[in-house]
Amino acid sequence: MARVIRARPLTADAFRAYGDVLETEGAFRLINEGRCERYHDRARLEFGGDGRAGISLFHAEPRALPCTVAMLERHPEGSQAFIPMSESPWLVVVAPDEAGRPGTPEAFLPQPGQAINLLRKVWHGVLTPLAAPGLFAVVDRIGASANLEEHHLEAPVVVDV
Amino acid sequence: MARVIRARPLTADAFRAYGDVLETEGAFRLINEGRCERYHDRARLEFGGDGRAGISLFHAEPRALPCTVAMLERHPEGSQAFIPMSESPWLVVVAPDEAGRPGTPEAFLPQPGQAINLLRKVWHGVLTPLAAPGLFAVVDRIGASANLEEHHLEAPVVVDV
Repeated sequence: MARVIRARPLTADAFRAYGDVLETEGAFRLINEGRCERYHDRARLEFGGDGRAGISLFHAEPRALPCTVAMLERHPEGSQAFIPMSESPWLVVVAPDEAGRPGTPEAFLPQPGQAINLLRKVWHGVLTPLAAPGLFAVVDRIGASANLEEHHLEAPVVVDV
Repeated sequence: MARVIRARPLTADAFRAYGDVLETEGAFRLINEGRCERYHDRARLEFGGDGRAGISLFHAEPRALPCTVAMLERHPEGSQAFIPMSESPWLVVVAPDEAGRPGTPEAFLPQPGQAINLLRKVWHGVLTPLAAPGLFAVVDRIGASANLEEHHLEAPVVVDV
């Protein structure tokens, strides 16, 4: 029987080893004559020696919970930020590395207004919106060399609330 | 009497001289076993010789139309992308450069699912959401040297639909 992983609310503390939660918490600068808060430089970005930053859009098919996760992937050469372009729910699945393979996955449910930046080499599930429109801006490495490792789990996990 | 500028729908063609419209149009790659479209590397990013890419969040007070624009700014050292984290309406005001000063402004109304990347040195108004939550991710240059020029218009303009 598949292991069930319970998704929990996304918080910066719980997520720190995997990446950054981009949200309007903590210190900000007031700009534009006081009309705008700037939460400055919140992501630990990496693009590799021969890479550069790029912005792409990902448009993904919504899934429903419970949801089976059979594969995790990671990017050895760069970080990857996912910025939702709506307030719709989505799911984040990550796992610690254990000797080059993913360990037990963890699942998080972002709130509206939260984006994430995955650190380089962090195992993660594919982009999983839980409702339309499934549209995200992705800031990641653009480069010629390979930047994807996939790992098919021996025992797929089921993520539920 | 103030000049009135009519805001029009944002399109990639109309905006090209000012920057990129990031949207799910044109060619894409299917990733994640066919479940996700990747619209790859859509922004002409620049971060200057001594700068680097950063992701910040901007949380701005919503305005209403008609809206007076009295100041335009630009960033001589880098591009600046604005990615809305909701589907709420917002306003984009830009102007061509005329001998180091902004010429006649143009105003655009993005659709849900559109983000923009302003090219380096493009005159633009401050971030102007037209409804809550007014939350945007901003990809721009992080660096030590000055990267802001402001120009107060001799004759403020009024933007309306």
